[in-house]
Amino acid sequence: MSRPPGRKQENHKISRELFVLTYGALVAQLCKDYEKDEDVNSCLDRMGHSIGVRLIDDFLARSAVKKCRSYSETAEMIAQVAFKMYLGVTPSVTCSSPAGNEFSLILDKNPLVDFVEELPPERASLCYCNLLCGVIRGALEMVHLAAEVTFLQDRLKGDPVTEIGITFLRKAEDRKHKRN
Amino acid sequence: MSRPPGRKQENHKISRELFVLTYGALVAQLCKDYEKDEDVNSCLDRMGHSIGVRLIDDFLARSAVKKCRSYSETAEMIAQVAFKMYLGVTPSVTCSSPAGNEFSLILDKNPLVDFVEELPPERASLCYCNLLCGVIRGALEMVHLAAEVTFLQDRLKGDPVTEIGITFLRKAEDRKHKRN
Repeated sequence: MSRPPGRKQENHKISRELFVLTYGALVAQLCKDYEKDEDVNSCLDRMGHSIGVRLIDDFLARSAVKKCRSYSETAEMIAQVAFKMYLGVTPSVTCSSPAGNEFSLILDKNPLVDFVEELPPERASLCYCNLLCGVIRGALEMVHLAAEVTFLQDRLKGDPVTEIGITFLRKAEDRKHKRN
Repeated sequence: MSRPPGRKQENHKISRELFVLTYGALVAQLCKDYEKDEDVNSCLDRMGHSIGVRLIDDFLARSAVKKCRSYSETAEMIAQVAFKMYLGVTPSVTCSSPAGNEFSLILDKNPLVDFVEELPPERASLCYCNLLCGVIRGALEMVHLAAEVTFLQDRLKGDPVTEIGITFLRKAEDRKHKRN
């Protein structure tokens, strides 16, 4: 995905409403396709992963950020640069483990659910925004960071905030050395 | 969809890449769901229509445009305000009928296909961006303008440009009067 010179000068900014409604159409389609919420959730996560794997190049090229030196810096980067760039919001970040590898991104307001009133009763286990978890996981994987990313709280399910948990796993390189 | 005061002050701008990739995931899913390109195309058009019906409120609230007095003004508004706002590009507009009710929006570059190389041979009849036609049709319907919206040319299919044709049909009000 090489970027021709001058490409960065283009207007990449759009209003997010068309995106939010298109995402809604995608989730609705998957709900037609799969009966079980769990299947919709994993499909969204898989799709998100493929997106993250491709989006990381765009992110690195456009944000011009430097290499993060800690999990904490990485989590802040996701919240302050990536979320801002792609969703127009900045979650707050808390570290939730003494080991320093578990973080929460806390969204007071989740723009992806702007047009969603509430989940229908028969879809109570749906992680509506699960694509985001996949995107984060896929993008991190491309910079050699293995992570588990899941929704811990969701305002759509009545929680006071929306919280995405990121657990950084043992570094990919370490595991490789171990295998060798 | 009433908008609380101050809502307009929020940052609604996002980078379009996440949207473009998510749209790609939606089309890919529909290609899994439907064997025939025609079915994918109509599904995209239907989804787009539902989106347009909802997006128009957002558009009117945020663009603060005045009522258009002619088809030509409406076509220019779609190109210069709506496309700019939601896709970050401005198509050129040409009028293609002596009756003055047929217009073409011509896109030198279609941002929705940024990550698409070409259509696979078995999907040669796919109108990849057909959602857009539905969105325009749905939004126009909500301001009492009936229109047919279709792709006339598509760079993904080897055409030199991408061209969306809008044919304004007899005004909804006229038809109503006729029925009465």
